[in-house]
Amino acid sequence: MRVLAFLNGTVADPDAPHIRVEDLGLMRGDGVFETVLVADGEPRELRPHLDRLARSASMLELPEPDDEAWQRATRTVIDNWTGGEFALKLVYTRGVDPAGEPTAFALGLEIDPKVFAARRDGVAVVTLERGIDPGLAERAPWLLLGAKSLSYAINMAAVREADRRGAADVIFTATDGSVLEGPTSNVIVAKDRTLYTPPPAIGILPGTTQAAVFRGAERAGWSTKIEPIRAADLTSADGVFLSSSVRKLTRVHTLDGTPLPDSTAIHAELAQAYESVYA
Amino acid sequence: MRVLAFLNGTVADPDAPHIRVEDLGLMRGDGVFETVLVADGEPRELRPHLDRLARSASMLELPEPDDEAWQRATRTVIDNWTGGEFALKLVYTRGVDPAGEPTAFALGLEIDPKVFAARRDGVAVVTLERGIDPGLAERAPWLLLGAKSLSYAINMAAVREADRRGAADVIFTATDGSVLEGPTSNVIVAKDRTLYTPPPAIGILPGTTQAAVFRGAERAGWSTKIEPIRAADLTSADGVFLSSSVRKLTRVHTLDGTPLPDSTAIHAELAQAYESVYA
Repeated sequence: MRVLAFLNGTVADPDAPHIRVEDLGLMRGDGVFETVLVADGEPRELRPHLDRLARSASMLELPEPDDEAWQRATRTVIDNWTGGEFALKLVYTRGVDPAGEPTAFALGLEIDPKVFAARRDGVAVVTLERGIDPGLAERAPWLLLGAKSLSYAINMAAVREADRRGAADVIFTATDGSVLEGPTSNVIVAKDRTLYTPPPAIGILPGTTQAAVFRGAERAGWSTKIEPIRAADLTSADGVFLSSSVRKLTRVHTLDGTPLPDSTAIHAELAQAYESVYA
Repeated sequence: MRVLAFLNGTVADPDAPHIRVEDLGLMRGDGVFETVLVADGEPRELRPHLDRLARSASMLELPEPDDEAWQRATRTVIDNWTGGEFALKLVYTRGVDPAGEPTAFALGLEIDPKVFAARRDGVAVVTLERGIDPGLAERAPWLLLGAKSLSYAINMAAVREADRRGAADVIFTATDGSVLEGPTSNVIVAKDRTLYTPPPAIGILPGTTQAAVFRGAERAGWSTKIEPIRAADLTSADGVFLSSSVRKLTRVHTLDGTPLPDSTAIHAELAQAYESVYA
């Protein structure tokens, strides 16, 4: 099933066309989005997602999102959803006329069965060059590094490249050999009861699920550090994980074709710590 | 006025919605496009535009565009256009289902009055860092450098940055200080009766209008060279120009706040050489 709600709270048929061809979201990838996991009828990390939507919108100089209206639309989709756990997309574009109304909708979607398999079995990942240095985001804000924009063609192409290499996902690396992020996830590394993730300032998205995992892990006695990670150090970690709203914490079992040390026990512990945040 | 035609040749109302919210062109900027100038009822450089559309589609692993159908849709828009010169957008997205039908349409649009002013008066331009090295495109094809994808949020953000700096357009530079391209144009430099433009292999779009300008200029006795250009050399050129389908050959009169040597005479000569291609 699918449920579509516009920002005024109206529910619409997702099979019908609702977007004009001139919408700048379509013509220029000129907009921002969020993907929220809805489990047990509750949107997880909605506040951080809406904060990040506002941050992305600000980076693209879109009008400030109407927070209450987004919360209402979110609630409308949830109220009209009759299945179980689902993915909620929040999409906000510059609309047809930059001086006019933005386009804004919330869309509930079924979760791909492959996602459940990835949560359970982990994934093979390849590292791919992203071609940028860690200082670029601060020097060149017009490159929108760290904004969750609709211009995701590169992210999709990277996943196709992973598929060609027999893997399911990607860890992007910077020109200095440091770890950036996945095309649709953050990277979390476990080593000696400490969790590491790179700082957003290097040009990556601040992770909503990463933050939730860190909160849960801290309660369970882990230390956490936000600091640069060298790609060369991934193979000697106790565990490498990708975090994203819908896939939650996904274990990386193979990196660039080489099996990583077995992290199933650590994954089980961290997955439980993450779930405990919502218990 | 606006004229919208789908690839089956049907004409549709551009004010009505035709795109589903789940279209991957909207959700992911996952598609490609071209902008063609139609003057005197003829699409300029249609063959190179359709070749480039096919090349971009191949880079994004979209199905090969149906060349005849695109020509037909182009002709349909032109036949239904009742005004003068106009811009024709060709848009081709992955559609709602990657295994299903792509979304494909041709849209005729009025030319913004600012474009006519830019053609006549030239523009102020700022150089902005693009953060990539010239070898990246060949090393990392998943970054889609040189594909004209719908993921143009950065290109739009760069133009807003130019506006903030009191300029109208941008020349992107690479990490080695070489010239790349504009967000929606190619860069052409004139020096000692020779025209220069950077090679597409460094990760930029091959220019349809740039190629037409070069053809016209060669007939008029100019030499042409496709080779790297250093941004530091722009100020000592006889003329710096941006080429794009709708703006044609636009003179850069000011670079990073500093007036460039007067190139109005060279511009007039090259603009005429370009028009002679269609005479």
